[in-house]
Amino acid sequence: MITRMSSLFLRTLREDPADAEVPSHRLLVRAGYVRRVAPGGFSWLPLGLRVLRNVERVVREEMDAMGAQEIQFPALLPREPYEVTGRWTEYGPNIFRLKDRKGADYLLGPTHEELFALTVKGEYSSYKDFPVTLYQVQTKYRDEARPRAGILRGREFLMKDSYSFDLDDEGLARSYAAHRDTYIRIFDRLGLKYVIVSAMSGAMGGSASEEFLAEAEHGEDTFVRSTDSDYAANVEAVITPAPPAQSTSDKPDAQVHHTPGTPTIAGLVDFLNTARLGRTFTAADTLKNVLLKVRQPGAKDTTLLAVGLPGDREVDLKRLEAALEPAEVALLEEADFAANSFLVKGYIGPGALAANGVRYLVDPRVVTGSAWVTGADKADHHVVDLVCGRDFTPDGTIEAAEVREGDASPDGNGTLVAARGIEIGHIFQLGRKYADAFGLDALGPDSKPIRITMGSYGVGVSRLVAVIAEQSNDARGLIWPRAVAPADVHLVIAGKDDTVRAGAERLAAELDAAGVQVILDDRTVSPGVKFADAELVGVPTIVVVGRGLANGVVEVKDRASGERADVPVDEVVAHLVGLVNS
Amino acid sequence: MITRMSSLFLRTLREDPADAEVPSHRLLVRAGYVRRVAPGGFSWLPLGLRVLRNVERVVREEMDAMGAQEIQFPALLPREPYEVTGRWTEYGPNIFRLKDRKGADYLLGPTHEELFALTVKGEYSSYKDFPVTLYQVQTKYRDEARPRAGILRGREFLMKDSYSFDLDDEGLARSYAAHRDTYIRIFDRLGLKYVIVSAMSGAMGGSASEEFLAEAEHGEDTFVRSTDSDYAANVEAVITPAPPAQSTSDKPDAQVHHTPGTPTIAGLVDFLNTARLGRTFTAADTLKNVLLKVRQPGAKDTTLLAVGLPGDREVDLKRLEAALEPAEVALLEEADFAANSFLVKGYIGPGALAANGVRYLVDPRVVTGSAWVTGADKADHHVVDLVCGRDFTPDGTIEAAEVREGDASPDGNGTLVAARGIEIGHIFQLGRKYADAFGLDALGPDSKPIRITMGSYGVGVSRLVAVIAEQSNDARGLIWPRAVAPADVHLVIAGKDDTVRAGAERLAAELDAAGVQVILDDRTVSPGVKFADAELVGVPTIVVVGRGLANGVVEVKDRASGERADVPVDEVVAHLVGLVNS
Repeated sequence: MITRMSSLFLRTLREDPADAEVPSHRLLVRAGYVRRVAPGGFSWLPLGLRVLRNVERVVREEMDAMGAQEIQFPALLPREPYEVTGRWTEYGPNIFRLKDRKGADYLLGPTHEELFALTVKGEYSSYKDFPVTLYQVQTKYRDEARPRAGILRGREFLMKDSYSFDLDDEGLARSYAAHRDTYIRIFDRLGLKYVIVSAMSGAMGGSASEEFLAEAEHGEDTFVRSTDSDYAANVEAVITPAPPAQSTSDKPDAQVHHTPGTPTIAGLVDFLNTARLGRTFTAADTLKNVLLKVRQPGAKDTTLLAVGLPGDREVDLKRLEAALEPAEVALLEEADFAANSFLVKGYIGPGALAANGVRYLVDPRVVTGSAWVTGADKADHHVVDLVCGRDFTPDGTIEAAEVREGDASPDGNGTLVAARGIEIGHIFQLGRKYADAFGLDALGPDSKPIRITMGSYGVGVSRLVAVIAEQSNDARGLIWPRAVAPADVHLVIAGKDDTVRAGAERLAAELDAAGVQVILDDRTVSPGVKFADAELVGVPTIVVVGRGLANGVVEVKDRASGERADVPVDEVVAHLVGLVNS
Repeated sequence: MITRMSSLFLRTLREDPADAEVPSHRLLVRAGYVRRVAPGGFSWLPLGLRVLRNVERVVREEMDAMGAQEIQFPALLPREPYEVTGRWTEYGPNIFRLKDRKGADYLLGPTHEELFALTVKGEYSSYKDFPVTLYQVQTKYRDEARPRAGILRGREFLMKDSYSFDLDDEGLARSYAAHRDTYIRIFDRLGLKYVIVSAMSGAMGGSASEEFLAEAEHGEDTFVRSTDSDYAANVEAVITPAPPAQSTSDKPDAQVHHTPGTPTIAGLVDFLNTARLGRTFTAADTLKNVLLKVRQPGAKDTTLLAVGLPGDREVDLKRLEAALEPAEVALLEEADFAANSFLVKGYIGPGALAANGVRYLVDPRVVTGSAWVTGADKADHHVVDLVCGRDFTPDGTIEAAEVREGDASPDGNGTLVAARGIEIGHIFQLGRKYADAFGLDALGPDSKPIRITMGSYGVGVSRLVAVIAEQSNDARGLIWPRAVAPADVHLVIAGKDDTVRAGAERLAAELDAAGVQVILDDRTVSPGVKFADAELVGVPTIVVVGRGLANGVVEVKDRASGERADVPVDEVVAHLVGLVNS
């Protein structure tokens, strides 16, 4: 069916919308693809809905091709299953909750792990039934604190979420790998530039978890990549390369110094460098001990935790939280210091921690044999040459220090640089958390139950429309990849005389008959307006039927490159069919 | 892609689910199409989702063919537009409401009139832009008091809703007619048995409104149809045929009788028939006056209304409410009678009503010249031969009396019989209600604003899956029409030897290559189990590859008729392709 601009429900805007923060939002609104109807809530106008459905189709085709089976759950979900897993509480204000007329609690589903696990438990029972992978393409809801950037971060959005169910870890690894391959195929088909980054899997530690991040200047997610290799990772997932351990026997003895008024690293370093100790100190020579209180899930009380890290690094709270997840963590407050008088603020050292049973985790750079300036557990005193493994023994290491540009890449090749991206996919070896919660077992060949292990995998379908727009536009408008474009050809009638109009109509009809999706600009506005709209709308190929028709040619323009060519009228259908199928 | 029963996420049930009230629910659960996850909330398993998508596709194709343009709104909607139209309040407990983290009010959209009107206002401004018809296929929410019958009446369901926007009433009538034709095409393609009934349009009186009701024994909607014509109507929309007016001059004078203890019609008739008045009375000779209080929208106070109807008929509250809509109506209570002492309960007549300025509407059977026994406005007294148009003059007529089987059909052909159905579509000339609320105007050729008039049209997409199942099943299971079946062919491997299995696999591959959707039952269960599942699942054509293969034939069975035929193996692909495309 030919889409006629004269009747298409579309009004392009010459001006940028006032509330648009990023290019994709600006252009999708200006080109009439989406409209905001509430904070984080958008309507899809005809062209936008076509692109959304095209993205959805690509995702569905690849999910089907990998053997995943599509089902669909309601978005309005009862509280009970989420109560069983604790997520009703854990989500806090991030989900929409409501009561029905009888006062029963419901939520608008942010993800559906619970329902998938319960459904598989309801249908399947034998080891012979497994593995199975199910998916849905579903409207999801999250009550974002700050919905922003148009459909990039809405409160109602379309997601493909899938879940694999396997009998053992090897099966899960295979399902995970299959999803990884499928996601690569999806994002490649969509023409996206993206990286796959290691993602922290927190308490589920050891489980594989990776994020697909589309590269985007305005992306919300930061990650690091190597200058010299394809290493890329979420900051939370960066593993600090530890220097080699050193001998402890060749170090000078630890010595306590009176360092009055040096509770800060900078003050301490200044003091040491004027104290005639015979060497120069930097912040990297000091060991900063940060005191935290940690609450394990379900626990009433918090316990103290000390993190030791080189004084030139700050604690990165997101890395710290990821390392301790699912425990909650907070910095000590004055009252906590008061309640633990052995903690001499500004002068805390490993000695008092060990003497008082405080768990002590250190940055991986704090290796055996390394010598540090650190607190002497006495006001205005520090100890120099306190050697790890000789003078103190940490309880382990923790990834809590900030990652900086220029740090060595964990894979040994090059150094790290920061980059920004937008999460478009996430694959995660979830393990047995939900199977445990609901008792999801298969009966094995020996009639013994086998606890199922799950993977969870998501693609942000509606977000992808914005991500593609974010990566593919220019000053004049959108530039859609052919796989998702709202049409194949944007045919402009550039002339008022009947021959031109009739020629364009005939060409549109022939293209339509040949299976080419045509937007025909049959409006009575000026060619200039039509050209501007064609560039803004961003269909990959723009065909202009105008004066050249008298010489038997029409102009075919590539939206992305701007290249134009005159093509003989009697060859143009074949030419365009060739382009569409290329 | 071949769907293999060995890996299909499907477990059929031998037993009926305990909570299933109607055949469609029972069979859709037993055949593994849907599962209940909450009251009125269902998940779609793979086969069910396929049928749902097929129904959706038919609806979309026909909407596109009529020139309607698809868009999509969020389901989570802000309160404000619904406040403007008053529906935030009017919906009462029938919608789901919630607050976001900032305390702002939202609802889950039950229909989207407000959003469509606002969107058209946002994009369009000139008379040249109109008419336009927009639609969406969207998940809708209603907090039904009693969700029942599976997906027939859920709280979360899929609907196609469309809205036409026209410059004038003639345009609206054309848009309405186009939708009517489109709905006929949709329901015909889906193979449904249905009637189109006049529906009351209440206060919007005069506007056309029709419902498409699928005939169904277990339907919730009652309607009447003629024994002798294709007349069908909602009970609320039945127009009572009025008898011809009579002369008032040849009637005996009205006479008041002492009729002690006759506040009821039955008591009155008994009394009269023993009072030696020289004739026999029936309840149909009496005029019953029912007192009501009516509150106009927005009004603080109620006003009295009397309805006069033949004593052999009860007031049908639904018909009464529909006739008075959007006013609210209630029967008088004791306190109301006490406050209006001229109302002598059980003996109310037209005299006191007129004397006290009470509006008096009568059943259409109460024509000029008809004589009645009715209350004399005095305890224990009635008046006989009170003649309409001579002794009293009603303020008009009202359709408030019950409709009974055997009543004359309003079209003059035959009598009415009651029938049950399920609403599958509704078309409605909405008029200017929403355009008025939001000031939706087009600028006319004379630069004056033209108020837009709207039509609203709905099809219950997910409900249709159940309706089709309700109309098309037998004792063994579902029988899908080809247009929506989850597959074209259900191929059963009925034999263990390798030749049979290989032959079936080859046939499945050939069918798949020919574009025929195949479910292949490659499980290791007995042929009996496979046959039972095939009948339950309800794919239109069942092919059995078994012992006949040695003789070069496979069995092709029509699920609906049960007819079987042996078809030579080398002809079966062509034979099945022919069936699928027929």
